[in-house]
Amino acid sequence: MVSRAIIQELQAAAGKGAVTFSPEDLIVYSYDATMPEYRPDVVVFPQSTEQVAAIMRVANEHRLPVVPRGAGTNVSGGSLALEGGMILCLSRMNRILEIDRENLVAVVEPGVVNAELQAALAPLGLFYPPDPASMNVCTIGGNVAENSGGPRCLKYGVTKDYVLGLEVVLPTGEVIHTGGSVMKNCTGYDFTRLFVGSEGTLGVVTKITLRLLPLAEAKKTMLAVFDSVVDASSAVSAIIARGIIPTTLELMDRILLRCAEDFVHVGLPKDAGAVLLIEVDGFRESLDGQMRQIKAVCRANQARELRHARTSKEVDDLWLARRTVIGAVGRLEPNYGLQDVTVPRSKLPIIVEEIGDISAKYDLPIGVLAHAGDGNLHPIVLFDARRDGDLAKVHAAEKEICKAALALGGTLSGEHGIGLSKREYLPMEYGPIEMSLVARLRKVFDPNGILNPGKIVAGGIV
Amino acid sequence: MVSRAIIQELQAAAGKGAVTFSPEDLIVYSYDATMPEYRPDVVVFPQSTEQVAAIMRVANEHRLPVVPRGAGTNVSGGSLALEGGMILCLSRMNRILEIDRENLVAVVEPGVVNAELQAALAPLGLFYPPDPASMNVCTIGGNVAENSGGPRCLKYGVTKDYVLGLEVVLPTGEVIHTGGSVMKNCTGYDFTRLFVGSEGTLGVVTKITLRLLPLAEAKKTMLAVFDSVVDASSAVSAIIARGIIPTTLELMDRILLRCAEDFVHVGLPKDAGAVLLIEVDGFRESLDGQMRQIKAVCRANQARELRHARTSKEVDDLWLARRTVIGAVGRLEPNYGLQDVTVPRSKLPIIVEEIGDISAKYDLPIGVLAHAGDGNLHPIVLFDARRDGDLAKVHAAEKEICKAALALGGTLSGEHGIGLSKREYLPMEYGPIEMSLVARLRKVFDPNGILNPGKIVAGGIV
Repeated sequence: MVSRAIIQELQAAAGKGAVTFSPEDLIVYSYDATMPEYRPDVVVFPQSTEQVAAIMRVANEHRLPVVPRGAGTNVSGGSLALEGGMILCLSRMNRILEIDRENLVAVVEPGVVNAELQAALAPLGLFYPPDPASMNVCTIGGNVAENSGGPRCLKYGVTKDYVLGLEVVLPTGEVIHTGGSVMKNCTGYDFTRLFVGSEGTLGVVTKITLRLLPLAEAKKTMLAVFDSVVDASSAVSAIIARGIIPTTLELMDRILLRCAEDFVHVGLPKDAGAVLLIEVDGFRESLDGQMRQIKAVCRANQARELRHARTSKEVDDLWLARRTVIGAVGRLEPNYGLQDVTVPRSKLPIIVEEIGDISAKYDLPIGVLAHAGDGNLHPIVLFDARRDGDLAKVHAAEKEICKAALALGGTLSGEHGIGLSKREYLPMEYGPIEMSLVARLRKVFDPNGILNPGKIVAGGIV
Repeated sequence: MVSRAIIQELQAAAGKGAVTFSPEDLIVYSYDATMPEYRPDVVVFPQSTEQVAAIMRVANEHRLPVVPRGAGTNVSGGSLALEGGMILCLSRMNRILEIDRENLVAVVEPGVVNAELQAALAPLGLFYPPDPASMNVCTIGGNVAENSGGPRCLKYGVTKDYVLGLEVVLPTGEVIHTGGSVMKNCTGYDFTRLFVGSEGTLGVVTKITLRLLPLAEAKKTMLAVFDSVVDASSAVSAIIARGIIPTTLELMDRILLRCAEDFVHVGLPKDAGAVLLIEVDGFRESLDGQMRQIKAVCRANQARELRHARTSKEVDDLWLARRTVIGAVGRLEPNYGLQDVTVPRSKLPIIVEEIGDISAKYDLPIGVLAHAGDGNLHPIVLFDARRDGDLAKVHAAEKEICKAALALGGTLSGEHGIGLSKREYLPMEYGPIEMSLVARLRKVFDPNGILNPGKIVAGGIV
């Protein structure tokens, strides 16, 4: 519980209309795109850096937990108020402050929605590469906190590769500036990239300077259809080994193909073992040659069909299927656990087989979705939470998937973060010294441990 | 002075042949590519991670300063033993441990020379993009410590964009592992990128996992000749604003053109105001179109001549001139101060004019060399250290260049680091909170302050 006195201090910091603690509102902010629910005590909606700083000073003085939040699309529990306290919702700080065409730079507030930025950039012939599946709703601030990826990150890189500078309010209420609008920066320590992906545990980002790219002149999209998911993933590894880096190499297996097709009706091959959604972009003249090589590799890996998307509607249909597939699995089972591990690309066929074994062992359907070109898999474990024992089985299956990825030289998270969902697994990847560095580094920025307590590692307010 | 007892402990840690303290040897390790000289007390050449760990335990116990060093090509004083103590020379840890063609990954020890790695990769159709001017001698470990750049980083990014994982010995002798061989990694804090560019102040890197790229199919090289350096830099900004990102956009002004031509005799236009060395690479069919657009922009910015390099010898000649120009300025004056600042690209013409004013004010020739496409300038202040007052003037001129860059929204260092050379300027860019974070973060990794003391910020052993 937060006392009336603290509420009044928060109202003084951010304005009365920016503070809510009505039960109905608190329920709305008690979950994100992960499963568990935790009720915050208060939700605050700042509109400026100064307000964020004032709010943090109140929170720090009273040792009030603060959980920064954008659109709540987090899939590792990063925006859950585990210990109650405050949800600091940055959705009202949603202005695009600057688009600098000459320098290919944009400055935005954290609440700007990814797709809104893209929409503002496209008419200028520019784009911001990271494109998480939730891009139509997720915010750039959330993308920064989680170092979000997306399909085209295969060619273009992830959020971290595009953040040039930040304004950050520390848990103490102090405001710092990192990086800037320059393309190369070797001044001091790289605080910018330390904050990116720190899951809202080191500071509250209030302004973001992003690097932009010119839109490619043209692109080509193809669906490669395979009878087996192992063949499809072998093709992925072979394409990269051939020295070709397409824009996207997305994999969906049979389970997901069926769910997707039944949902969007765009003619996906429901009897296939897996498909690869392959896109290349760049100078117009360069695309046919790339596609020719990719097709040869796919054929050599037993692709049974290679379908070119011939119209922009066909392209949009394929991407609609891909972007909505996670929701579409609701047709099979009411619940799902979305995993996120990365392995070296050449290990894709191996982990795909192991996931099949895990699915059989626990008698749970597991759909394999992957940013396959990056070796980044999102196995989707389907279940029914009302069924006795399902939750425990899901948990065990997910842990085995993590173990399998680590055993292959992979990592626990490619783009979703550790958050709450994987904090118990972190010691499987980090040794005791690395774990201790996490805690000590965090203390440098947040001496009282008020910021997103319990995320990445257990433990709370000091 | 280091006691005989400590020497014996170091010999026990690394072997007798790995420890030297003869005056002749110490002189050799008392300077790097920066000007000042500081004599170390001992130089140690480890050959394994275990030896580095043992050495660090000895140093930490006795509060002995440790300065990690590769080839000593550092141009910000990073490898100088300011407080005496130990030079930890990693040149004997020079094995390429693995080149994984399938996953486009290499694992190397820190003493591997950049060009040797390139030579090992080229026959496999691969390359490692960062290409500092000193690539024929500088080591990957040094590149990691300084987050080195180079001409083609305009298109491909700097060292930080290619380091996937590290093995690091902390000042306490503990060994940690960060990142891995995977392309996407959101597990915990990004220690990897925190170490990259930390100038040997947080840990000693003993193993480096690098991302590789397939070699481009083809490239084209052109020299654009301008009567004025301001026109040349306006062209740079206009090319990028047009949405074209070449592989390189290198600028040399008249002073440097003359020095370079007198040195290499390759037919550079000695009467020009500046040249741009422009390269594009990629799929063969895509190059002519890019070059056509670039030429149009150059002409619109008063280029007086556009010379295509028609043979590989012509290409090599141009790059030889560019890569050797810093040495070639010795023809004009015996000493030079090499600067390194970055500004937003659109500010290039402004800072180039301001550098001209600073040159006039202090009556010192300043040659302008720039990775212009990145807005990263290397003004070269020419002087004679034997001439009374020259050193003070150089110092004042360099400080004004830094101030000018910061006033334009730039940064103190694009790729050379802060080291000793710019630590007094750091508070011009960092506020007191950022400065305090630097100190506190450093203490997390190096509680006794033994690692490269006095670099980035003043201060030493705790």
